[in-house]
Amino acid sequence: MARPSRKNMDADTPSARDQLLDATGALMTEQRTIDISLAEIAERSGLNSALVKYYFGSKNGLLVALLRKVLGPRMAELEPLVHAPMAPNEKLRIHINGVVNTYFKYPYVNRLMHYLMTEAGQEYGKIIAEEFARPLVDTQSAILKEGQSKGLFLETDPLMFYFHLVGACDYLFFGRATLDHVFGVQEVTQDLKRRYVDHIYQTLTKGLAPA
Amino acid sequence: MARPSRKNMDADTPSARDQLLDATGALMTEQRTIDISLAEIAERSGLNSALVKYYFGSKNGLLVALLRKVLGPRMAELEPLVHAPMAPNEKLRIHINGVVNTYFKYPYVNRLMHYLMTEAGQEYGKIIAEEFARPLVDTQSAILKEGQSKGLFLETDPLMFYFHLVGACDYLFFGRATLDHVFGVQEVTQDLKRRYVDHIYQTLTKGLAPA
Repeated sequence: MARPSRKNMDADTPSARDQLLDATGALMTEQRTIDISLAEIAERSGLNSALVKYYFGSKNGLLVALLRKVLGPRMAELEPLVHAPMAPNEKLRIHINGVVNTYFKYPYVNRLMHYLMTEAGQEYGKIIAEEFARPLVDTQSAILKEGQSKGLFLETDPLMFYFHLVGACDYLFFGRATLDHVFGVQEVTQDLKRRYVDHIYQTLTKGLAPA
Repeated sequence: MARPSRKNMDADTPSARDQLLDATGALMTEQRTIDISLAEIAERSGLNSALVKYYFGSKNGLLVALLRKVLGPRMAELEPLVHAPMAPNEKLRIHINGVVNTYFKYPYVNRLMHYLMTEAGQEYGKIIAEEFARPLVDTQSAILKEGQSKGLFLETDPLMFYFHLVGACDYLFFGRATLDHVFGVQEVTQDLKRRYVDHIYQTLTKGLAPA
Protein backbone atom coordinates (compact mmCIF):
# COMPACT_ATOMS: atom_id res chain seq x y z
CA MET A 1 0.00 0.00 0.00
CA ALA A 2 1.38 3.39 -1.00
CA ARG A 3 2.19 5.97 1.65
CA PRO A 4 1.03 9.50 0.97
CA SER A 5 3.88 11.43 -0.62
CA ARG A 6 4.92 14.85 0.64
CA LYS A 7 3.33 16.29 -2.48
CA ASN A 8 0.00 14.63 -1.76
CA MET A 9 0.06 15.71 1.86
CA ASP A 10 0.58 19.33 0.78
CA ALA A 11 -1.96 19.17 -2.00
CA ASP A 12 -5.31 20.88 -1.65
CA THR A 13 -7.79 18.77 0.28
CA PRO A 14 -10.25 18.52 -2.63
CA SER A 15 -7.76 17.00 -5.02
CA ALA A 16 -6.76 14.08 -2.76
CA ARG A 17 -10.44 13.53 -2.10
CA ASP A 18 -11.17 13.56 -5.83
CA GLN A 19 -8.26 11.24 -6.54
CA LEU A 20 -9.76 8.62 -4.21
CA LEU A 21 -13.16 8.97 -5.88
CA ASP A 22 -11.74 8.85 -9.41
CA ALA A 23 -9.64 5.78 -8.57
CA THR A 24 -12.71 4.02 -7.18
CA GLY A 25 -14.84 4.80 -10.25
CA ALA A 26 -12.07 3.77 -12.65
CA LEU A 27 -11.50 0.44 -10.84
CA MET A 28 -15.23 -0.33 -10.80
CA THR A 29 -15.51 0.41 -14.51
CA GLU A 30 -12.46 -1.64 -15.49
CA GLN A 31 -13.12 -4.61 -13.23
CA ARG A 32 -16.89 -4.58 -13.87
CA THR A 33 -17.62 -5.04 -10.20
CA ILE A 34 -18.35 -2.75 -7.27
CA ASP A 35 -16.40 -5.10 -5.00
CA ILE A 36 -13.21 -3.02 -4.82
CA SER A 37 -10.95 -3.10 -1.75
CA LEU A 38 -9.49 -0.10 0.05
CA ALA A 39 -6.03 -1.52 -0.76
CA GLU A 40 -6.80 -1.39 -4.49
CA ILE A 41 -8.10 2.17 -4.18
CA ALA A 42 -4.96 3.18 -2.28
CA GLU A 43 -2.69 1.58 -4.86
CA ARG A 44 -4.51 3.12 -7.82
CA SER A 45 -4.69 6.61 -6.32
CA GLY A 46 -1.20 6.51 -4.80
CA LEU A 47 -2.74 7.60 -1.49
CA ASN A 48 -2.94 5.96 1.90
CA SER A 49 -6.18 4.06 2.39
CA ALA A 50 -6.53 5.69 5.82
CA LEU A 51 -7.51 8.85 3.95
CA VAL A 52 -10.80 7.14 3.02
CA LYS A 53 -11.80 7.20 6.66
CA TYR A 54 -10.52 10.77 6.99
CA TYR A 55 -12.45 12.15 4.03
CA PHE A 56 -15.51 9.90 3.89
CA GLY A 57 -15.86 8.35 7.35
CA SER A 58 -16.16 4.83 5.91
CA LYS A 59 -16.06 2.88 2.68
CA ASN A 60 -19.82 3.30 2.30
CA GLY A 61 -19.28 7.04 2.79
CA LEU A 62 -16.82 6.94 -0.11
CA LEU A 63 -19.38 5.13 -2.28
CA VAL A 64 -22.04 7.77 -1.54
CA ALA A 65 -19.53 10.52 -2.34
CA LEU A 66 -18.74 8.82 -5.66
CA LEU A 67 -22.44 8.74 -6.57
CA ARG A 68 -22.79 12.41 -5.60
CA LYS A 69 -19.80 13.30 -7.76
CA VAL A 70 -20.88 11.48 -10.92
CA LEU A 71 -24.65 12.00 -10.59
CA GLY A 72 -24.58 15.56 -9.23
CA PRO A 73 -24.23 17.25 -12.63
CA ARG A 74 -27.06 15.06 -14.01
CA MET A 75 -29.33 15.89 -11.08
CA ALA A 76 -28.69 19.61 -11.67
CA GLU A 77 -30.14 19.25 -15.18
CA LEU A 78 -33.52 18.00 -13.95
CA GLU A 79 -35.06 21.25 -12.70
CA PRO A 80 -34.16 23.27 -15.84
CA LEU A 81 -35.66 20.49 -17.99
CA VAL A 82 -39.02 20.80 -16.21
CA HIS A 83 -39.16 24.52 -17.03
CA ALA A 84 -37.68 24.32 -20.52
CA PRO A 85 -39.80 25.81 -23.34
CA MET A 86 -40.65 22.56 -25.10
CA ALA A 87 -43.46 20.01 -25.30
CA PRO A 88 -43.76 17.59 -22.34
CA ASN A 89 -43.26 14.52 -24.53
CA GLU A 90 -39.99 16.03 -25.75
CA LYS A 91 -38.98 16.61 -22.11
CA LEU A 92 -39.75 12.96 -21.43
CA ARG A 93 -37.55 11.85 -24.34
CA ILE A 94 -34.66 13.96 -23.03
CA HIS A 95 -35.19 12.57 -19.52
CA ILE A 96 -35.16 8.93 -20.67
CA ASN A 97 -32.06 9.64 -22.74
CA GLY A 98 -30.39 11.19 -19.68
CA VAL A 99 -31.11 8.21 -17.44
CA VAL A 100 -29.88 5.67 -20.01
CA ASN A 101 -26.79 7.75 -20.81
CA THR A 102 -25.87 7.96 -17.14
CA TYR A 103 -25.95 4.16 -16.77
CA PHE A 104 -24.03 3.87 -20.03
CA LYS A 105 -21.30 6.29 -18.99
CA TYR A 106 -20.96 5.02 -15.41
CA PRO A 107 -21.66 1.27 -15.63
CA TYR A 108 -21.25 0.81 -11.88
CA VAL A 109 -23.91 3.35 -10.88
CA ASN A 110 -26.92 1.05 -10.82
CA ARG A 111 -25.17 -1.72 -8.86
CA LEU A 112 -23.80 0.86 -6.44
CA MET A 113 -27.27 2.29 -5.90
CA HIS A 114 -28.74 -1.19 -5.43
CA TYR A 115 -26.04 -2.07 -2.92
CA LEU A 116 -26.47 1.13 -0.91
CA MET A 117 -30.26 0.81 -1.07
CA THR A 118 -30.47 -2.80 0.03
CA GLU A 119 -27.32 -4.06 1.71
CA ALA A 120 -25.54 -1.11 3.35
CA GLY A 121 -28.00 -0.23 6.10
CA GLN A 122 -31.12 1.94 6.34
CA GLU A 123 -29.29 5.26 6.57
CA TYR A 124 -27.81 4.68 3.13
CA GLY A 125 -31.16 3.61 1.69
CA LYS A 126 -32.55 6.92 2.90
CA ILE A 127 -29.71 8.92 1.31
CA ILE A 128 -30.20 7.20 -2.06
CA ALA A 129 -33.96 7.73 -1.88
CA GLU A 130 -33.83 11.37 -0.84
CA GLU A 131 -30.91 12.55 -2.98
CA PHE A 132 -31.22 10.48 -6.14
CA ALA A 133 -34.71 9.00 -6.41
CA ARG A 134 -36.79 11.96 -5.16
CA PRO A 135 -35.48 14.50 -7.71
CA LEU A 136 -36.25 12.03 -10.52
CA VAL A 137 -39.74 11.41 -9.17
CA ASP A 138 -40.37 15.18 -8.84
CA THR A 139 -39.16 15.76 -12.40
CA GLN A 140 -41.26 12.95 -13.83
CA SER A 141 -44.34 14.06 -11.85
CA ALA A 142 -44.01 17.60 -13.22
CA ILE A 143 -43.62 16.36 -16.81
CA LEU A 144 -46.56 13.97 -16.42
CA LYS A 145 -48.74 16.73 -14.96
CA GLU A 146 -47.88 19.13 -17.76
CA GLY A 147 -48.55 16.38 -20.32
CA GLN A 148 -51.92 15.64 -18.74
CA SER A 149 -52.93 19.31 -18.76
CA LYS A 150 -52.05 19.46 -22.46
CA GLY A 151 -53.99 16.29 -23.26
CA LEU A 152 -50.88 14.25 -24.16
CA PHE A 153 -50.87 11.77 -21.29
CA LEU A 154 -53.51 9.95 -19.31
CA GLU A 155 -53.51 10.50 -15.57
CA THR A 156 -50.70 8.27 -14.32
CA ASP A 157 -49.51 7.36 -10.83
CA PRO A 158 -45.97 8.79 -10.47
CA LEU A 159 -45.01 5.74 -8.40
CA MET A 160 -45.92 3.34 -11.23
CA PHE A 161 -44.24 5.59 -13.75
CA TYR A 162 -41.01 5.91 -11.74
CA PHE A 163 -40.46 2.18 -11.17
CA HIS A 164 -41.49 1.35 -14.73
CA LEU A 165 -39.22 3.90 -16.41
CA VAL A 166 -36.13 3.66 -14.19
CA GLY A 167 -36.41 -0.14 -13.90
CA ALA A 168 -36.52 -0.50 -17.68
CA CYS A 169 -33.53 1.86 -18.17
CA ASP A 170 -31.55 0.23 -15.36
CA TYR A 171 -32.00 -3.37 -16.45
CA LEU A 172 -30.32 -3.09 -19.84
CA PHE A 173 -27.10 -2.42 -17.95
CA PHE A 174 -27.47 -5.31 -15.57
CA GLY A 175 -27.79 -8.17 -17.97
CA ARG A 176 -24.43 -8.47 -19.70
CA ALA A 177 -24.66 -12.24 -19.29
CA THR A 178 -28.15 -12.28 -20.82
CA LEU A 179 -27.13 -9.91 -23.61
CA ASP A 180 -24.22 -12.19 -24.46
CA HIS A 181 -25.61 -15.70 -23.99
CA VAL A 182 -29.22 -15.14 -25.07
CA PHE A 183 -28.97 -12.34 -27.63
CA GLY A 184 -25.37 -12.75 -28.84
CA VAL A 185 -24.68 -9.10 -28.02
CA GLN A 186 -21.26 -8.48 -26.44
CA GLU A 187 -21.91 -5.01 -25.06
CA VAL A 188 -24.31 -2.09 -25.05
CA THR A 189 -23.16 -0.03 -28.03
CA GLN A 190 -24.11 3.56 -28.81
CA ASP A 191 -26.52 2.20 -31.41
CA LEU A 192 -28.21 -0.27 -29.05
CA LYS A 193 -28.49 2.44 -26.41
CA ARG A 194 -30.08 4.84 -28.93
CA ARG A 195 -32.59 2.21 -30.09
CA TYR A 196 -33.45 1.30 -26.50
CA VAL A 197 -34.15 4.94 -25.58
CA ASP A 198 -36.36 5.17 -28.65
CA HIS A 199 -38.21 1.96 -27.75
CA ILE A 200 -38.87 3.10 -24.17
CA TYR A 201 -39.92 6.57 -25.29
CA GLN A 202 -42.25 5.35 -28.05
CA THR A 203 -43.83 2.67 -25.87
CA LEU A 204 -44.39 5.00 -22.90
CA THR A 205 -45.73 7.98 -24.83
CA LYS A 206 -48.07 5.80 -26.89
CA GLY A 207 -48.97 3.68 -23.88
CA LEU A 208 -49.83 6.75 -21.81
CA ALA A 209 -51.67 8.67 -24.53
CA PRO A 210 -55.42 9.16 -24.06
CA ALA A 211 -57.46 6.67 -26.12
CA MET B 1 -16.97 -28.26 -9.39
CA ALA B 2 -17.65 -31.82 -8.20
CA ARG B 3 -21.22 -32.48 -7.25
CA PRO B 4 -22.97 -35.65 -6.21
CA SER B 5 -25.49 -36.60 -8.90
CA ARG B 6 -29.12 -35.78 -8.30
CA LYS B 7 -30.04 -39.49 -8.28
CA ASN B 8 -27.56 -40.31 -5.57
CA MET B 9 -28.71 -37.40 -3.49
CA ASP B 10 -32.35 -38.37 -3.78
CA ALA B 11 -31.50 -41.91 -2.71
CA ASP B 12 -29.30 -40.63 0.07
CA THR B 13 -30.74 -37.70 2.00
CA PRO B 14 -32.95 -35.60 -0.24
CA SER B 15 -34.51 -33.86 2.69
CA ALA B 16 -31.18 -32.57 4.04
CA ARG B 17 -30.54 -30.89 0.68
CA ASP B 18 -33.98 -29.28 0.75
CA GLN B 19 -33.55 -28.24 4.37
CA LEU B 20 -30.42 -26.28 3.47
CA LEU B 21 -32.22 -24.56 0.58
CA ASP B 22 -35.31 -23.78 2.64
CA ALA B 23 -33.21 -22.39 5.50
CA THR B 24 -31.33 -20.14 3.05
CA GLY B 25 -34.52 -18.81 1.45
CA ALA B 26 -36.17 -18.22 4.82
CA LEU B 27 -33.15 -16.33 6.19
CA MET B 28 -32.92 -14.17 3.07
CA THR B 29 -36.61 -13.33 3.28
CA GLU B 30 -36.54 -12.53 7.00
CA GLN B 31 -33.29 -10.58 7.02
CA ARG B 32 -34.03 -8.82 3.72
CA THR B 33 -30.53 -9.46 2.49
CA ILE B 34 -28.82 -12.12 0.39
CA ASP B 35 -25.72 -11.80 2.56
CA ILE B 36 -26.30 -14.91 4.67
CA SER B 37 -23.40 -16.90 6.13
CA LEU B 38 -22.93 -20.65 6.01
CA ALA B 39 -22.95 -20.60 9.83
CA GLU B 40 -26.43 -19.04 9.84
CA ILE B 41 -27.67 -21.58 7.31
CA ALA B 42 -26.23 -24.41 9.39
CA GLU B 43 -27.83 -23.08 12.56
CA ARG B 44 -31.23 -22.55 10.95
CA SER B 45 -31.32 -25.94 9.24
CA GLY B 46 -29.77 -27.81 12.15
CA LEU B 47 -27.27 -29.30 9.70
CA ASN B 48 -23.51 -29.11 9.41
CA SER B 49 -22.39 -26.34 7.05
CA ALA B 50 -19.95 -28.80 5.43
CA LEU B 51 -23.02 -30.34 3.76
CA VAL B 52 -23.28 -27.23 1.60
CA LYS B 53 -20.02 -28.21 -0.07
CA TYR B 54 -21.13 -31.83 -0.29
CA TYR B 55 -24.46 -31.12 -1.96
CA PHE B 56 -23.80 -27.91 -3.88
CA GLY B 57 -20.02 -27.72 -4.33
CA SER B 58 -19.88 -24.15 -3.02
CA LYS B 59 -22.02 -21.39 -1.58
CA ASN B 60 -22.66 -20.05 -5.07
CA GLY B 61 -23.74 -23.57 -6.04
CA LEU B 62 -26.26 -23.45 -3.17
CA LEU B 63 -27.58 -20.10 -4.42
CA VAL B 64 -28.09 -21.47 -7.94
CA ALA B 65 -29.86 -24.51 -6.49
CA LEU B 66 -32.15 -22.21 -4.48
CA LEU B 67 -33.08 -20.30 -7.65
CA ARG B 68 -33.73 -23.58 -9.47
CA LYS B 69 -35.96 -24.76 -6.66
CA VAL B 70 -38.13 -21.65 -6.34
CA LEU B 71 -38.17 -20.62 -10.02
CA GLY B 72 -38.38 -24.12 -11.53
CA PRO B 73 -42.18 -24.44 -11.14
CA ARG B 74 -42.62 -20.94 -12.65
CA MET B 75 -40.38 -21.75 -15.59
CA ALA B 76 -42.43 -24.89 -16.26
CA GLU B 77 -45.55 -22.74 -16.74
CA LEU B 78 -44.01 -20.74 -19.60
CA GLU B 79 -44.28 -23.26 -22.44
CA PRO B 80 -47.95 -24.19 -21.73
CA LEU B 81 -48.80 -20.46 -21.65
CA VAL B 82 -47.42 -19.98 -25.17
CA HIS B 83 -49.72 -22.74 -26.48
CA ALA B 84 -52.77 -21.91 -24.38
CA PRO B 85 -56.02 -21.25 -26.30
CA MET B 86 -56.29 -17.54 -25.52
CA ALA B 87 -55.51 -14.18 -27.11
CA PRO B 88 -51.84 -13.12 -27.11
CA ASN B 89 -52.53 -9.97 -25.08
CA GLU B 90 -54.16 -12.14 -22.41
CA LYS B 91 -51.05 -14.36 -22.44
CA LEU B 92 -48.95 -11.25 -21.96
CA ARG B 93 -51.06 -10.18 -18.98
CA ILE B 94 -50.64 -13.60 -17.36
CA HIS B 95 -46.90 -13.51 -18.05
CA ILE B 96 -46.43 -10.05 -16.46
CA ASN B 97 -48.50 -11.17 -13.49
CA GLY B 98 -46.32 -14.28 -13.14
CA VAL B 99 -43.05 -12.30 -13.16
CA VAL B 100 -44.30 -9.76 -10.61
CA ASN B 101 -45.78 -12.47 -8.39
CA THR B 102 -42.50 -14.37 -8.36
CA TYR B 103 -40.60 -11.31 -7.13
CA PHE B 104 -43.38 -10.66 -4.62
CA LYS B 105 -43.34 -14.20 -3.23
CA TYR B 106 -39.54 -14.57 -3.19
CA PRO B 107 -38.21 -11.09 -2.39
CA TYR B 108 -34.58 -12.25 -2.60
CA VAL B 109 -34.83 -13.61 -6.15
CA ASN B 110 -33.92 -10.47 -8.06
CA ARG B 111 -30.95 -9.60 -5.85
CA LEU B 112 -29.75 -13.20 -6.04
CA MET B 113 -29.99 -13.16 -9.83
CA HIS B 114 -28.17 -9.81 -10.00
CA TYR B 115 -25.43 -11.10 -7.72
CA LEU B 116 -24.95 -14.33 -9.68
CA MET B 117 -25.10 -12.44 -12.97
CA THR B 118 -22.60 -9.74 -12.09
CA GLU B 119 -20.42 -10.61 -9.10
CA ALA B 120 -20.11 -14.39 -8.87
CA GLY B 121 -18.06 -15.10 -11.99
CA GLN B 122 -18.84 -15.71 -15.65
CA GLU B 123 -19.92 -19.34 -15.24
CA TYR B 124 -22.78 -18.21 -13.00
CA GLY B 125 -23.76 -15.41 -15.36
CA LYS B 126 -24.06 -18.04 -18.07
CA ILE B 127 -26.25 -20.29 -15.90
CA ILE B 128 -28.61 -17.42 -15.05
CA ALA B 129 -28.80 -16.37 -18.69
CA GLU B 130 -29.37 -19.86 -20.10
CA GLU B 131 -31.69 -21.27 -17.45
CA PHE B 132 -33.72 -18.27 -16.35
CA ALA B 133 -33.48 -15.48 -18.94
CA ARG B 134 -33.64 -17.54 -22.14
CA PRO B 135 -36.97 -19.28 -21.37
CA LEU B 136 -38.52 -15.87 -20.61
CA VAL B 137 -37.15 -14.41 -23.84
CA ASP B 138 -38.44 -17.41 -25.84
CA THR B 139 -41.89 -17.10 -24.24
CA GLN B 140 -42.08 -13.37 -24.84
CA SER B 141 -40.87 -13.75 -28.43
CA ALA B 142 -43.56 -16.34 -29.16
CA ILE B 143 -46.30 -14.16 -27.63
CA LEU B 144 -45.06 -11.08 -29.53
CA LYS B 145 -44.95 -13.03 -32.79
CA GLU B 146 -48.47 -14.36 -32.31
CA GLY B 147 -49.66 -10.86 -31.42
CA GLN B 148 -48.03 -9.43 -34.53
CA SER B 149 -49.60 -12.07 -36.77
CA LYS B 150 -53.01 -11.21 -35.30
CA GLY B 151 -52.51 -7.47 -35.74
CA LEU B 152 -52.38 -6.72 -32.01
CA PHE B 153 -48.73 -5.71 -31.67
CA LEU B 154 -46.26 -3.82 -33.82
CA GLU B 155 -43.08 -5.65 -34.77
CA THR B 156 -40.93 -5.38 -31.64
CA ASP B 157 -37.34 -6.39 -30.93
CA PRO B 158 -37.47 -9.19 -28.30
CA LEU B 159 -34.31 -7.78 -26.71
CA MET B 160 -35.91 -4.37 -26.12
CA PHE B 161 -39.08 -6.03 -24.89
CA TYR B 162 -37.27 -8.37 -22.47
CA PHE B 163 -35.19 -5.69 -20.73
CA HIS B 164 -38.11 -3.26 -20.65
CA LEU B 165 -40.62 -5.72 -19.18
CA VAL B 166 -38.40 -7.60 -16.74
CA GLY B 167 -36.58 -4.42 -15.66
CA ALA B 168 -39.87 -2.71 -14.87
CA CYS B 169 -41.19 -5.72 -12.92
CA ASP B 170 -37.90 -6.21 -11.08
CA TYR B 171 -37.41 -2.62 -9.97
CA LEU B 172 -40.55 -2.32 -7.86
CA PHE B 173 -38.99 -4.90 -5.56
CA PHE B 174 -35.64 -3.18 -5.32
CA GLY B 175 -36.66 0.19 -4.09
CA ARG B 176 -37.99 -0.33 -0.58
CA ALA B 177 -36.07 2.79 0.52
CA THR B 178 -37.56 4.81 -2.34
CA LEU B 179 -41.05 3.42 -1.71
CA ASP B 180 -40.78 4.43 1.93
CA HIS B 181 -38.97 7.77 1.85
CA VAL B 182 -40.30 9.17 -1.42
CA PHE B 183 -43.78 7.67 -1.71
CA GLY B 184 -44.59 6.96 1.96
CA VAL B 185 -45.32 3.32 1.10
CA GLN B 186 -44.01 0.81 3.66
CA GLU B 187 -44.22 -2.31 1.55
CA VAL B 188 -45.49 -3.76 -1.71
CA THR B 189 -49.01 -4.86 -0.83
CA GLN B 190 -51.24 -7.19 -2.84
CA ASP B 191 -53.14 -4.10 -4.01
CA LEU B 192 -50.02 -2.20 -5.13
CA LYS B 193 -48.76 -5.32 -6.88
CA ARG B 194 -52.10 -5.74 -8.71
CA ARG B 195 -52.14 -2.09 -9.80
CA TYR B 196 -48.54 -2.28 -10.95
CA VAL B 197 -49.22 -5.36 -13.11
CA ASP B 198 -52.20 -3.51 -14.59
CA HIS B 199 -50.13 -0.39 -15.30
CA ILE B 200 -47.34 -2.38 -17.03
CA TYR B 201 -49.85 -4.43 -19.01
CA GLN B 202 -51.92 -1.44 -20.14
CA THR B 203 -48.89 0.66 -21.05
CA LEU B 204 -47.17 -2.13 -22.98
CA THR B 205 -50.20 -3.37 -24.90
CA LYS B 206 -51.25 0.16 -25.83
CA GLY B 207 -47.68 1.22 -26.47
CA LEU B 208 -47.08 -1.74 -28.78
CA ALA B 209 -50.42 -1.60 -30.62
CA PRO B 210 -50.33 -0.63 -34.32
CA ALA B 211 -51.23 3.04 -34.84
